[in-house]
Amino acid sequence: MRQERLFTPGPVELPERVRQALSRQIIHHRTEEFRRAFLEVRELIKRMLSDPSENFVFFASSGTGAMESAVLNFFQEGDKVLVINGGKFGERWLKLATHWGLKPVEYRVEWGKSADPQEVRRLLKEHPDCKGVFFQISETSTGAYHPAKEIGEVCQEHEALCVADAITALGVYHIVPKDWKIDVLVGGSQKGFLLPPGLSLLWFSERAERSLTDRAFYFSVKKELSKQKEGQTAWTPAISLILALKESLELILEEGMERVEKRHRALSEGTLKAVKALGLKAFAQHPALSVSAIASDRSEEIRKELLKLGIRVAGGQDELKGKIFRISHMGADPKDTLMLIGILEVVLNRLGYEMELGAGVKAFSKTMMEYGLW
Amino acid sequence: MRQERLFTPGPVELPERVRQALSRQIIHHRTEEFRRAFLEVRELIKRMLSDPSENFVFFASSGTGAMESAVLNFFQEGDKVLVINGGKFGERWLKLATHWGLKPVEYRVEWGKSADPQEVRRLLKEHPDCKGVFFQISETSTGAYHPAKEIGEVCQEHEALCVADAITALGVYHIVPKDWKIDVLVGGSQKGFLLPPGLSLLWFSERAERSLTDRAFYFSVKKELSKQKEGQTAWTPAISLILALKESLELILEEGMERVEKRHRALSEGTLKAVKALGLKAFAQHPALSVSAIASDRSEEIRKELLKLGIRVAGGQDELKGKIFRISHMGADPKDTLMLIGILEVVLNRLGYEMELGAGVKAFSKTMMEYGLW
Repeated sequence: MRQERLFTPGPVELPERVRQALSRQIIHHRTEEFRRAFLEVRELIKRMLSDPSENFVFFASSGTGAMESAVLNFFQEGDKVLVINGGKFGERWLKLATHWGLKPVEYRVEWGKSADPQEVRRLLKEHPDCKGVFFQISETSTGAYHPAKEIGEVCQEHEALCVADAITALGVYHIVPKDWKIDVLVGGSQKGFLLPPGLSLLWFSERAERSLTDRAFYFSVKKELSKQKEGQTAWTPAISLILALKESLELILEEGMERVEKRHRALSEGTLKAVKALGLKAFAQHPALSVSAIASDRSEEIRKELLKLGIRVAGGQDELKGKIFRISHMGADPKDTLMLIGILEVVLNRLGYEMELGAGVKAFSKTMMEYGLW
Repeated sequence: MRQERLFTPGPVELPERVRQALSRQIIHHRTEEFRRAFLEVRELIKRMLSDPSENFVFFASSGTGAMESAVLNFFQEGDKVLVINGGKFGERWLKLATHWGLKPVEYRVEWGKSADPQEVRRLLKEHPDCKGVFFQISETSTGAYHPAKEIGEVCQEHEALCVADAITALGVYHIVPKDWKIDVLVGGSQKGFLLPPGLSLLWFSERAERSLTDRAFYFSVKKELSKQKEGQTAWTPAISLILALKESLELILEEGMERVEKRHRALSEGTLKAVKALGLKAFAQHPALSVSAIASDRSEEIRKELLKLGIRVAGGQDELKGKIFRISHMGADPKDTLMLIGILEVVLNRLGYEMELGAGVKAFSKTMMEYGLW
């Protein structure tokens, strides 16, 4: 009688419309039917990013595949780049850049802190030959937001490509890559796109286009772009995920990107006020809207007790194991998050925390009302 | 009122059990539930390949991704290799090998013909420094079978790794890689595994294991293997496809691999006898059991007329465009193939072919009865 509910920062629960699309009989990809659907998906992506550019491709891969694609397609061996490393996914940029022969300068940011654009500026002055800057808009492992627009600004000043991992930022923030001065943007399906994992996205600017290389094969942007503009793909696409993406993008755009961001802002703020009212606090200095990392030395106990009551949140990874638990807001319905907070209250009560049942829910509901969501 | 039926050599129609699995709410991959399911899938793969070895990994990618993985993980830049190129997928090996810095010796096989093991032997004698031999077990573009066991034998004689693209051979042939002397085996989900595209498989021998490199990142066998043995993955897996694979593998193994191969042999033989009875002929010298390529200068007309009656077969690609049409047998229920042949008769009749309605179906049904399937 109990359905486990997911509040993990990917995968996130699938909307009913998406599940229906996934259960349909498969269609062939070299057909007019697929071509039309794929071109519609592309139009929806353009609307989502408020940009008419055709410069984006999908890959049949997890988000890490699109990260590899960003490294291979826009940089040559030996290129110096700046990598902002403030968590597990910052580390992944560093590993990818090193693996594929780039020369990364590391800007190490303490886990939980956000990058300082002034420091990015200083480092780019110190290393004026940096061809690009890699970072996460939302560092999923720590719940931190890195100031993307400000970093984009600094990149433009120094003519470095601004490469943003937006895997947990797309479908959360109203990202307009041109306004944000982002050159390469990476996304993954099991996050704000509300799909199963296995489909990734790579968008790039005209400036980035001029750096396109031939280094990749499976993840080749050139090979894919020439086909995808026409509604086809170089290799067999993740057909079912692309068809389901049409459903989720329609859902997202019916709500509208501004309101999508507002909802996530309300969810983040409401959740953090709720946990504060319950005596806990946010881990991140500048929390990302996609995921709230809550600091607690008893986080593993809390996580396990939540699970016993049917709520799955994520723990900390690597050095944060046992130090935080993480609540995803991606695609969440506020009433589900209210439910989570109510259950969190029960758990904290049971674990002997000094707190008042209802205090978290009260703070949360007030926030939703202030935002006009309720 | 008309449901289009797919007889394309990938994707193939999804069984009901698979569609149900795909429509389920997503689960998180870092859970005991996923781990258990994934380990069960791995056990089923071992049963399918009659090999207890743990040396295989899945990737979230199309089959081409696993081909890239085979090139990157077992060969170094500058390695000389022999590539058997007898169609569009042989060409893909050649392109991948060249792209990643191997030095391919090309054994060009006329499209529709099969590789001659004696010629492979001669070439390996001429180039004794070849580290591997790349080929397709079933060359999907021409419908040809390359004699895998004989090629494996020759590879072993010359201590070259036998790298077999089995994308349209797994789930069709009863492949026992050790008996066939295959060192690296590549598979893709939308073929004999009866799933949507987006999941690929790479199996390798102990001999191949000794050549493992660190050249790949996303497609790294080492990174994946250490995790996948424990039921986890290095990057986010294609969760829904892995869970659905459990269903399709159970279906396949309930039938049993010997009977699976027998069914495909009957389907292939029955289809080719049927088209012969209707005045058409096979294109391939040694037809693969996965797909029947039928030679006809009017193939595009035939294909389009079939489509009007709700049957989708594939045309020819590249130089074979307009020269052949292709009927997939992968995962097919013989009564569906009977239906296709009945409709093909109607189409040929309508196009003015001299043939007798029912002659194809008669030949097909007789074959099914001879094989004891009916």
